[in-house]
Amino acid sequence: MMSEPHVQFQPQGRKVPSKNGRTLLDLANDAGLSIESICGGVGVCAKCKVIVRSGIGSVTPLTSSEKEWLDALELASGMRLACQATVCGDGQIVVEVPQASQRGHHRLLEAGTERKVRPEPAITKVALKLPPATLKDLRADDDRLLEILARKVKGSVRIAQGVHAHLPSAIRKNDWTATVTLFRRSEIIRVEPGDTSDQVFGVAVDIGTTKVVAYLVDLRTGALLHTESMPNPQIPFGEDVIARITYATKNEDGLSKLQTVVASGINELILKLCESRDITPDDILETMIVGNTAMHHVFFGITPQHLAAAPYAPAVRTSLCVDPSHVKVNMYQFGKVCSLPNIAGFVGADAVSDLIASGLYEDRKIGMMIDIGTNTEIIAGNKNRLISCSCASGPAFEGAHIRFGMRAATGAIERVWIDPESHEVRLRTVDDSPPKGICGSGIVDAVAELFKNRLIDASGKINVSSKDDRTRKGKRGLPEFVLATASESGTGEEITITQHDIQEIQLAKAAIFTGVSILMKKLRLRASEIDRVYAAGAFGTYVDAASAIAIGMYPDVSVERISFIGNAAGSGARMCLKSTKMRDLADELSKKVEYVELAAEKNFQSEFAQAMFLPHRDLSRFPGAASRLRGRP
Amino acid sequence: MMSEPHVQFQPQGRKVPSKNGRTLLDLANDAGLSIESICGGVGVCAKCKVIVRSGIGSVTPLTSSEKEWLDALELASGMRLACQATVCGDGQIVVEVPQASQRGHHRLLEAGTERKVRPEPAITKVALKLPPATLKDLRADDDRLLEILARKVKGSVRIAQGVHAHLPSAIRKNDWTATVTLFRRSEIIRVEPGDTSDQVFGVAVDIGTTKVVAYLVDLRTGALLHTESMPNPQIPFGEDVIARITYATKNEDGLSKLQTVVASGINELILKLCESRDITPDDILETMIVGNTAMHHVFFGITPQHLAAAPYAPAVRTSLCVDPSHVKVNMYQFGKVCSLPNIAGFVGADAVSDLIASGLYEDRKIGMMIDIGTNTEIIAGNKNRLISCSCASGPAFEGAHIRFGMRAATGAIERVWIDPESHEVRLRTVDDSPPKGICGSGIVDAVAELFKNRLIDASGKINVSSKDDRTRKGKRGLPEFVLATASESGTGEEITITQHDIQEIQLAKAAIFTGVSILMKKLRLRASEIDRVYAAGAFGTYVDAASAIAIGMYPDVSVERISFIGNAAGSGARMCLKSTKMRDLADELSKKVEYVELAAEKNFQSEFAQAMFLPHRDLSRFPGAASRLRGRP
Repeated sequence: MMSEPHVQFQPQGRKVPSKNGRTLLDLANDAGLSIESICGGVGVCAKCKVIVRSGIGSVTPLTSSEKEWLDALELASGMRLACQATVCGDGQIVVEVPQASQRGHHRLLEAGTERKVRPEPAITKVALKLPPATLKDLRADDDRLLEILARKVKGSVRIAQGVHAHLPSAIRKNDWTATVTLFRRSEIIRVEPGDTSDQVFGVAVDIGTTKVVAYLVDLRTGALLHTESMPNPQIPFGEDVIARITYATKNEDGLSKLQTVVASGINELILKLCESRDITPDDILETMIVGNTAMHHVFFGITPQHLAAAPYAPAVRTSLCVDPSHVKVNMYQFGKVCSLPNIAGFVGADAVSDLIASGLYEDRKIGMMIDIGTNTEIIAGNKNRLISCSCASGPAFEGAHIRFGMRAATGAIERVWIDPESHEVRLRTVDDSPPKGICGSGIVDAVAELFKNRLIDASGKINVSSKDDRTRKGKRGLPEFVLATASESGTGEEITITQHDIQEIQLAKAAIFTGVSILMKKLRLRASEIDRVYAAGAFGTYVDAASAIAIGMYPDVSVERISFIGNAAGSGARMCLKSTKMRDLADELSKKVEYVELAAEKNFQSEFAQAMFLPHRDLSRFPGAASRLRGRP
Repeated sequence: MMSEPHVQFQPQGRKVPSKNGRTLLDLANDAGLSIESICGGVGVCAKCKVIVRSGIGSVTPLTSSEKEWLDALELASGMRLACQATVCGDGQIVVEVPQASQRGHHRLLEAGTERKVRPEPAITKVALKLPPATLKDLRADDDRLLEILARKVKGSVRIAQGVHAHLPSAIRKNDWTATVTLFRRSEIIRVEPGDTSDQVFGVAVDIGTTKVVAYLVDLRTGALLHTESMPNPQIPFGEDVIARITYATKNEDGLSKLQTVVASGINELILKLCESRDITPDDILETMIVGNTAMHHVFFGITPQHLAAAPYAPAVRTSLCVDPSHVKVNMYQFGKVCSLPNIAGFVGADAVSDLIASGLYEDRKIGMMIDIGTNTEIIAGNKNRLISCSCASGPAFEGAHIRFGMRAATGAIERVWIDPESHEVRLRTVDDSPPKGICGSGIVDAVAELFKNRLIDASGKINVSSKDDRTRKGKRGLPEFVLATASESGTGEEITITQHDIQEIQLAKAAIFTGVSILMKKLRLRASEIDRVYAAGAFGTYVDAASAIAIGMYPDVSVERISFIGNAAGSGARMCLKSTKMRDLADELSKKVEYVELAAEKNFQSEFAQAMFLPHRDLSRFPGAASRLRGRP
């Protein structure tokens, strides 16, 4: 019997064993680690890049496909296309799968990556045995409680408003045994009969403009117990942030309505979270809120009016902590609803949360966190200096203003690959359903592929003189490219990408890269000096990193330097929910992070104009992308 | 032309000039200083005692009345009966009128005496000129405000929940001039456009079991601007504290109902206070609450249940500070409703307030504060040690359980004098209206007079064998004394004082003196060592000090050592409202004051039994009273 080779896969964080005679792609898929591939494993889409860290001798040699698709640097690092490399020996093989090649990283989206933090929550419980009140011990209930508590908790502790009313019965009901819930070890927010110290729950909420995600956390262990999400119920009042600010400002009860609907939404999520663990909202002791500055302001009942006009000053930067009733959250009545701090009008608590989740603030090497949305927040730097900006990237990546644009729902084209020879188009859709439209990651892929295959030029213009039968003039004489024919599509109609669509994507990516570029210039950085790009949020997770670099949206780093941190806003919020140290750090960081108002930058217009080109008018900013282009027909 | 003598009256605190040939009584009345007198100036009621401090040569010599009514010690101190002493020279005369002899001290009742305190209120306002937000100064509104404020206020300052919502418009509305309201210089509770720093108002409220008094105070100057009062609207739910505790405990929504009605009452008073100065409740920034422990607990929505049974532990001793909405008080929404601390279940925030108003805590000499009510709080000691107790004196002094008892309303007999020779009865009634009944001070006078004239004996038994035609057996054979005949009374019916009435008063005064006596013993004090007795509250103000000593209710000190401090609970509350130093002192004192639970004292029963006698079974405890008695027929 032949001895089986031991293939170890290393997705950033996991290990997978495997067998001889098969491709690394198959083995990875067997191991439940879904690697990107669009071309069906024929070695032409180059989405399945992996790095063989050791045991290269037990893998078949490089194929011609690999030699064509991988550049010198990639080859030198041991990079292979997983569909081309077959196991052929009996040694141990260690294969690293960059996050960019993992289909599985999509699953990160809701939870986000979370760095380990020691649970040091703001909410703690202390069980106490009190001496009974007698004629020889006449102390008042509060004195009695505080004096016993002082043996266990140092420093001055006060009893929160409203808790006094429950004190007498709570301490007497279970024979003078009671449990005190403390906030930051200085305020008693609850006194319960008996010992309930094994029940300490909190909720973290990320209020996104389009989606609200809530996480139930065990505050003793720090464990994430359950996640629930829903579309932001404010959507009917305005699709994007600006529309909602307008609604809140122009209607007398606009702000109050928006606050009420989002609070009701959060209450629904809390109820579901509680049902998952057979507890009740009354067991939720703290809720930690993050969101962009406008979502934050509206949730806390603060007018977002001044965020909509220069100089876009937020009303509140510092972190807040309010009563649940103040923001209509259904949880323990004297619990706390806290927020992370904001940085600026368009760099909110969610960006602070991203920053916490990324760990960028403690790196020695330079990193850049990019959270793409209608507004894209970027924070760059390292432990010494951090600098941020917000880019008005618009809703194109959410499918808006794109002819066949749609959200990443069933049937949305999420991956596009164009064969360089035949210009044959391969698509991947959400749920592998027949295509109905195209979502953000699909359209970025499409633009990247069209450009790489010279079907559009650097200015984005569709080359209608191409002999390709998918490139043509559309109904109103405007050039377009057919992604799916009527027979291929799930709607019975053609799905095309138009000249206008391409321009929308150029505007959006130019907005982002203008921010990237200005921050890089402020930090006097070249792309090669960026050690890591942290791609946060839904779009950042779904978009293909290589495509994003190819169109000039991300800085020109090699793809393995891109880390997908998923819904980092959610994970940062959870980290801060369970650690006061992280919370205090967030407060510090929000002060420390410099903010650049792009609109006030002198060279904004020229930067933007240059960034409209694919990948950029100044190709020296994109040496990697440029060299890959030069290798093409 | 004859030179006029200069007569200077010195009521404790005021000076009055006057003329030759007239009695000191007349001159004092001319000067607006109303001196007690019941006998019409014939020198037989001895209520008009004054002390001639200098210029005794310009006053007529002692009359036989004075020699009879004043004892050796009093004569030695220069004491005279004002109705007997006539000005007869041209020198300067300085006359001191003890508070006990001032009818005017009744006017102290609502306001109470207030010792001067430097205004250092918890609430302060700071007007600020902010640099406008521009593209070159992108600070968030909160940072902007806090950074400018930091130049004027040291230490960390946070913005209270809810205030953030008003911040953006408040700072922009009046061209970046705004006024910040601070609580204890550490919390911003309001931000208003423009400069409003000349409008800083607070309210102090004394929630008495029978009466609620509210005071409007200018917190900048400390001036008392206006006073309003009303009967406690909880009365329909129970006349006394125990009845209200029962109501709160036995009815499901009892506590909430009692809280709501008293809060509504306070809101009415606040509205009236505001109308008096043309301001609105929104201008009231802080409300300081005092009351007995039960009133305090109920107002703050805390069950008073455990106050009703041994060991009578209060739920809360420490001072509270809550949001107005939490206690339904109509004032500035993010203002503060604070309380003084309690000492024990029946020595509440009102007693702490009395203590503050009395100044007893800073005396070197020993004093005793007595606040008589259904429960009588006593605090004795000096700056080194303070000791307190509560006596269940019952409602007899409010007219309850007394056959013709009534509150001190129009027609209530408030002063009684019985002629030692003729046993003729002289009465003074409230508003000098024909008598309808007898109130607390009247019944104490009556018992004292009956006893001094040996119409009752030391056990309180009415001497029916007396030849007096006002002493007789009543309808059911029980002895009684006729205070007013049918023709004298305002009701057309006789007003009598019965054997039972006398016993009620004995029980009440014994309850009080038991407390006095136990505290004296704990402090190893004789009466002569008590430098000052502070008589607080309504009854303490109205009752005749000499009569109170004669029946053995107060310790046996000379009457000029009795200071009437009026509604000291109200004045202490005002002092604490306008001075955080006094407030901190109250917190300290409430911890420092020792509490003696009389019910737990071994010798309680024997002390009580002895105190049932008039003035006491052990006459060595009442040497002054005993010597005055010995001088009688």
